[in-house]
Amino acid sequence: MTPRIWTAALLVIGDEILSGRTQDKNVTQIASWLNVQGIRLREVRVVADVEEDIIFAANALRARYDYLFTTGGIGPTHDDITVDALAKALGVSVVVHPDARAVLEKYYETRGGLNEGRLRMARVPEGAELIPNRYSGAPGIRIGNVLIMAGVPQITAGMLDALTGTLEGGEPVLSTQVGCWVAESEIAALLINAERAHEGSQIGSYPFFREGRVGCNFVIRSTSQQVLDACAADLAAALEAGGWPAVLGGI
Amino acid sequence: MTPRIWTAALLVIGDEILSGRTQDKNVTQIASWLNVQGIRLREVRVVADVEEDIIFAANALRARYDYLFTTGGIGPTHDDITVDALAKALGVSVVVHPDARAVLEKYYETRGGLNEGRLRMARVPEGAELIPNRYSGAPGIRIGNVLIMAGVPQITAGMLDALTGTLEGGEPVLSTQVGCWVAESEIAALLINAERAHEGSQIGSYPFFREGRVGCNFVIRSTSQQVLDACAADLAAALEAGGWPAVLGGI
Repeated sequence: MTPRIWTAALLVIGDEILSGRTQDKNVTQIASWLNVQGIRLREVRVVADVEEDIIFAANALRARYDYLFTTGGIGPTHDDITVDALAKALGVSVVVHPDARAVLEKYYETRGGLNEGRLRMARVPEGAELIPNRYSGAPGIRIGNVLIMAGVPQITAGMLDALTGTLEGGEPVLSTQVGCWVAESEIAALLINAERAHEGSQIGSYPFFREGRVGCNFVIRSTSQQVLDACAADLAAALEAGGWPAVLGGI
Repeated sequence: MTPRIWTAALLVIGDEILSGRTQDKNVTQIASWLNVQGIRLREVRVVADVEEDIIFAANALRARYDYLFTTGGIGPTHDDITVDALAKALGVSVVVHPDARAVLEKYYETRGGLNEGRLRMARVPEGAELIPNRYSGAPGIRIGNVLIMAGVPQITAGMLDALTGTLEGGEPVLSTQVGCWVAESEIAALLINAERAHEGSQIGSYPFFREGRVGCNFVIRSTSQQVLDACAADLAAALEAGGWPAVLGGI
């Protein structure tokens, strides 16, 4: 029986990514975290702070994948429209969550008190649970298979910690590398052979140019450690046989 | 008459982004480049090296936006399936482009010669033109409103240079910043007022934490320099009036 594969999508919400102003860091950190949970990130979309675009993407992604993560747009200012847009996508109203309000009251007690903008961060789609935020008060939100996270990567990192072990997943994808000082275009056929010889393996080729020489790391992925090791050993042996010394673990 | 707004989407193709192994750099560089051409990046999608996922996303995006850029998956190895997938999406066959073949023959003349893997990089959807690649031989591809670029950011940068001035666009979005040592949650109402008072302006709020203090840069965007300057001046004045000294240009 083939084990079930659990999947996720990430919807990055923010004009600042699409304008080129801000370099996204959440894709890599959420991808790595998901893999440890046994969940595969299958698709990312980045949309602007435009309600209809958020709704359209959220509905497509939450239907297609087991989990939908969102980042961005949950702060206190007028351009933070994620909660309202997702509530519309889910067909529920927006309510002030009493626990979120209590968290914010406490957090802002010594920081000037709650005001209208800050209270916005206690608003959630009706029926949602909170995801703790240990850095800055305002919590993340979980409703159905949708997980609503901050845009600031450090805050999202804390929310991911809080979620660790709470999402059902399957077998994590394991990976290893074989490195070689060779142009990938020299050994394309050899990669196909190694992948085909080891069912359940997948080989990606990642060329680089260092110290004036071209080289390549071949990333092998599989859910089975045995398949991984056998594929890596065969690939390394085939490279060696072709006259290209290979380094298990990558270079 | 409202001027026409030209739009683009970017489809990033690659398991290495979705696995968290590689930090994407193409979104920011293509976004910034597009803005100078008077074209707005409206959506990004990242999909795996899976043919049906590439076809689905490419067809959705090329229909919805004026231009579709893709990055990744045009190298010499078996996991490079972008050209085949896009040809299927466009309903055309894949052919060897004679000019691309000539470029590759010349490039590999002193590098071991053309082989099957390298010749893959001369394959294009039928009817395509080439985009010069001044770094590593293998060209980018232009067909209809689809622009097929490399995954390696330095190579894509060269291809963007080659495309500069060749795509029709409209008015570029101008932007300026106002910086202030204030928590954005203190002044949310003030931002709304400034945006509403200046039609055609849009204000984004980008908080930071430096030197032990919270602060925020407010990015104002508009296609009109006049609107931009007036909005920035008003926002700075409102911040000053509230007791928060503002810095035009940002901090």
